[in-house]
Amino acid sequence: MDFYKGVICNTCFSVFSWTEENGSYGCTRVLLADCSTRMRSIVSFYFCYLLCLCLGIACVVFVSIWNSQWRGGFAWDGSALQFNWHPVLMVTGLVVLYGNGAVLYRIPLTWGQNKLPWKLLHAGVMLLALLCSILGLCAVFDFHHTNSTPNLYSLHSWIGICTTALFTTQWVMGLAGFLLPCSPMSFRKLLKPAHVWMGGCILILSIVSCISGINEKLFFALKGTTNGTVPYGNLPPEALVANSLGVLIVAFGLVVLKILSNQKWQRPEPRSEDLGYSPLLQDDS
Amino acid sequence: MDFYKGVICNTCFSVFSWTEENGSYGCTRVLLADCSTRMRSIVSFYFCYLLCLCLGIACVVFVSIWNSQWRGGFAWDGSALQFNWHPVLMVTGLVVLYGNGAVLYRIPLTWGQNKLPWKLLHAGVMLLALLCSILGLCAVFDFHHTNSTPNLYSLHSWIGICTTALFTTQWVMGLAGFLLPCSPMSFRKLLKPAHVWMGGCILILSIVSCISGINEKLFFALKGTTNGTVPYGNLPPEALVANSLGVLIVAFGLVVLKILSNQKWQRPEPRSEDLGYSPLLQDDS
Repeated sequence: MDFYKGVICNTCFSVFSWTEENGSYGCTRVLLADCSTRMRSIVSFYFCYLLCLCLGIACVVFVSIWNSQWRGGFAWDGSALQFNWHPVLMVTGLVVLYGNGAVLYRIPLTWGQNKLPWKLLHAGVMLLALLCSILGLCAVFDFHHTNSTPNLYSLHSWIGICTTALFTTQWVMGLAGFLLPCSPMSFRKLLKPAHVWMGGCILILSIVSCISGINEKLFFALKGTTNGTVPYGNLPPEALVANSLGVLIVAFGLVVLKILSNQKWQRPEPRSEDLGYSPLLQDDS
Repeated sequence: MDFYKGVICNTCFSVFSWTEENGSYGCTRVLLADCSTRMRSIVSFYFCYLLCLCLGIACVVFVSIWNSQWRGGFAWDGSALQFNWHPVLMVTGLVVLYGNGAVLYRIPLTWGQNKLPWKLLHAGVMLLALLCSILGLCAVFDFHHTNSTPNLYSLHSWIGICTTALFTTQWVMGLAGFLLPCSPMSFRKLLKPAHVWMGGCILILSIVSCISGINEKLFFALKGTTNGTVPYGNLPPEALVANSLGVLIVAFGLVVLKILSNQKWQRPEPRSEDLGYSPLLQDDS
């Protein structure tokens, strides 16, 4: 008698079917070995997640220090100080907030809980990331406008604008597909793999945009005698900090992609044949 | 009676267990629906693979045209013409050959065959990719040496050198783990997921390196009145071609990562419990 199909274990959050013969709701009494393997997997998840949090904080600290300490700080007056918002907002929004928003569902602590609040948090963090990115683009467009510099000619800008456009489309489609109550289940099922795949692609594009942008900025800023700076080729402290920021961004991105790609760290969703009983049906997206 | 565990279907190459009751060796008589789904998956694989091949060829054509048509062609004399080998060899080796070598095992045509020749081809293509990358690095180091330009100061060079170092390590570890007959099975099993994961990371790093490098080169080359060129900001034909090359590289990388990440397109390996009979045990790496 399979009365409790799609039950989630209270210890390791894996989905299993409970029958009267099992005599208990926990994997601890059903499949002890499986539960132990799963616990090890959860510990290694939290190690990666901690690394992801630390690298994310380091990225924000490094990009802020670089632009406040060596690039003269911030303003919104069309000057070079306005441009400085661009790297800070893009790294914070398009990389750090985006990456953290993407791995939210992977946190095992959330698996035993109702998915809706986590969906709203995912959408909220992603909206904040999107707003930061759009503000970061406004900073550079406004700076270019004031200084009569052409827009969208470099490869960095081509990749960057495509990334933000894809991110906007992804957010709108996510809202329409997974949060609007009128969205049909068939559309959600079709959208989900595309949403997950596009999510990873946008992160890769963000990393590509950031690295090419930091590289470009350092060549512009550290021209040596031309603008009275120590040339980039001599690796002054500013270059070391900004290059390290680039390395941190790449490391952060790879850790996030590792978390997203590990099958064992995916939120356990009840299988379709288990959905006859489970009330989780409404959250299957 | 499960005499034929781990049998591979001649039609769709999926692994299944054959019993006397099935009465045939093909999924066509065992699970017609599964076989049909699998065939659709194979057709969509070949569409992606064709896209991957076309994008790869386009990348090589674009990078060659850019450097021969607008950058003056090639030489090995320490001049700017020697530098031109750098983008051509890095894009051809670290992106196109590498990406094609990575997806070799995913081609369904190879699944029903002995794995060893495909392993050798995989290792061979990757070795060719590695040699191209090392030659590409020699071109730029030699150019820098002749012109007394410092090495390894830019973020592009930091990411690029890490990518090639990781790729070299990956190739040596792959040879030691999967091709040397003395390599123990326990080491192969431990190495395989790390090898697959690192393979994807190296491709992402290659894309990041290429995009930042193309972006940097265009700012160096198209300085306007400073060096008598149409400035990058005016998007002359050279800028359009090189920017398009960047877009093609990103598209190629994402298609390769799509192929690598799709579980359905992985070469079916016999499960450990099916290995009692199958001679494929020796190829389980």
